[in-house]
Amino acid sequence: MTEIVPVILSGGSGTRLWPMSRPEKPKQMLALTASDTMLQLTAARAHGDAFAAPIVVANAAHADAVEEQLGAIGAQPSALILEPAGRNTAPAIALAALSAGADQAMLVMPSDHVIADRDAFHAAIHAALPLVEQGWLITFGITPDAPETGYGYIKVGDELAPGIHRVARFVEKPKRDVAEAMIASGDHAWNGGIFLFRADAYLGALERFAPAILAAARSACAGARREGVRVYPDAAAFAASPSDSIDYAVMEKADRVAVVPVTMGWSDVGSWDALHAISDRDDRDNVVSGDVVMLDSRNCLVRSDGARVAMVGVEDLIVVASGNDILILPRGRSQDVKLLLDAMKN
Amino acid sequence: MTEIVPVILSGGSGTRLWPMSRPEKPKQMLALTASDTMLQLTAARAHGDAFAAPIVVANAAHADAVEEQLGAIGAQPSALILEPAGRNTAPAIALAALSAGADQAMLVMPSDHVIADRDAFHAAIHAALPLVEQGWLITFGITPDAPETGYGYIKVGDELAPGIHRVARFVEKPKRDVAEAMIASGDHAWNGGIFLFRADAYLGALERFAPAILAAARSACAGARREGVRVYPDAAAFAASPSDSIDYAVMEKADRVAVVPVTMGWSDVGSWDALHAISDRDDRDNVVSGDVVMLDSRNCLVRSDGARVAMVGVEDLIVVASGNDILILPRGRSQDVKLLLDAMKN
Repeated sequence: MTEIVPVILSGGSGTRLWPMSRPEKPKQMLALTASDTMLQLTAARAHGDAFAAPIVVANAAHADAVEEQLGAIGAQPSALILEPAGRNTAPAIALAALSAGADQAMLVMPSDHVIADRDAFHAAIHAALPLVEQGWLITFGITPDAPETGYGYIKVGDELAPGIHRVARFVEKPKRDVAEAMIASGDHAWNGGIFLFRADAYLGALERFAPAILAAARSACAGARREGVRVYPDAAAFAASPSDSIDYAVMEKADRVAVVPVTMGWSDVGSWDALHAISDRDDRDNVVSGDVVMLDSRNCLVRSDGARVAMVGVEDLIVVASGNDILILPRGRSQDVKLLLDAMKN
Repeated sequence: MTEIVPVILSGGSGTRLWPMSRPEKPKQMLALTASDTMLQLTAARAHGDAFAAPIVVANAAHADAVEEQLGAIGAQPSALILEPAGRNTAPAIALAALSAGADQAMLVMPSDHVIADRDAFHAAIHAALPLVEQGWLITFGITPDAPETGYGYIKVGDELAPGIHRVARFVEKPKRDVAEAMIASGDHAWNGGIFLFRADAYLGALERFAPAILAAARSACAGARREGVRVYPDAAAFAASPSDSIDYAVMEKADRVAVVPVTMGWSDVGSWDALHAISDRDDRDNVVSGDVVMLDSRNCLVRSDGARVAMVGVEDLIVVASGNDILILPRGRSQDVKLLLDAMKN
């Protein structure tokens, strides 16, 4: 068995953590939960004897930042594949699979998630390896702790091996009552977007279920320009790929798809509220970072990357100062960042 | 009767409106209640046929800003007296009185108050002029609307002329219950720090009750350097003056002291809460100034002189972004700016 190749997907440019997260410095480039960035934490999570150097798929605009951040922790990628345009995860992973050896196991990870319990993660990975060798596509099922409507769910089916189950069904972002029923059932997990499979297994599934994606990826790789570890796929060829997620394009259609349910302190840090929830808090439940002077305040998340924030007598407030922007909203309302961004566009 | 000489005291460098108000740009230099600054509004309030050009007493550090702001509204001072150091109001007014004609009526005004009803103010001034001519020292008594403990009070005594009363007593910043009793009595007014008297009447009172202040002011004026309208009193001579307020040094001691009670929409804009209270509010009771994007928020005061503030779902909050500082506190807590400044010093 060769080493597992971590495949780190760094293409995102989410806005839910605005104003810290911006197109030029998206969430994965930020140090939100620790002194290391989310990208660095992701790379460090799949580092060591069992792992080869990572393949990173990123937006070309972030090439320097990715190399700098990974270099700083001694996790230089074997290939840094720079997407000329975003085509969602299925094509991005196809580029990585074509760069890996056909028989290599690929551990596909978003670059902007937190996993607090690395040992549990590694145990789940190793439990899955025998099925991976048999060509199964593995997804990791996050033990859910709330009826979230923003996640995909996996119905956990029959056990295939200790701790590994056939996927009975994928359920995309459910309505609230459906989510509550799935939580109550006890046999559903969140789809955390972390996958493990051999490169040839993924490419084979693509060939069967999404041949246009595979063809575009092959063509983009064939025409790629290389500079050291950097790979610039052919832009026109890649642009011809359908844009689709690995879930829709492959996982929901393929036959031999398994899930490893795992409780590992996972969070996608999908909002400022989520960051407050997973962060270490002081004795007044505040989470503070940057130049902040705070008196008689409770249950706040306050972050500044420049300006000095002085607060007194405030409760349950989220304050984020970044660059020329200051975001202020009550705890529980951080999904409304989107409303503010819409309002600012108009 | 000669024209009244407005004497504008611009020596303050208060911190209650931090972070907008700073030593280098104190409250009177700010446009808080209108597009004009407090200093400009003060000068405009005593402008017209009845008034001569103002005498301004200011901190030397603010000379350019004072000239620029007054020039912009066509209210250049006849003298800009630049204090080498702050010695409180009695010496500052002494410098102005020595610059005015002995028989001129001086209308002494802080530069950082709001008076919404200028007609009422002018009517009070004109009602007082006959007594001024007889050598009385006049103060204006603000009709109180709350038992404030931060103001001085005046007990209104016998009527001397229509609308003008002898001052029965000055009461310095009272305790809460005393303030409440004074409000309930109906015969007390706030001491707004606005005075009207002939220069010779003030200098005569100083000679009797505060001769060291008068001597220091005379000596500072005798040794003054002049550049156009700018007057630089002799620093060593002025430094020798006792530091005292006109209230303590003169008004509370002199005999012929009268008060004109007046309801004129006065505010000293002594806090961010006060500014919210006196400002025009939108239909959700917000007072907003600067680059602010606000959704679903009520009863807030938000000011920014640079950064963009984006808020959603917030109520009863004061947010002030100025330079590199961001102040956040609930409405009703703006006196706690002082606690924050203390904390930041340490």
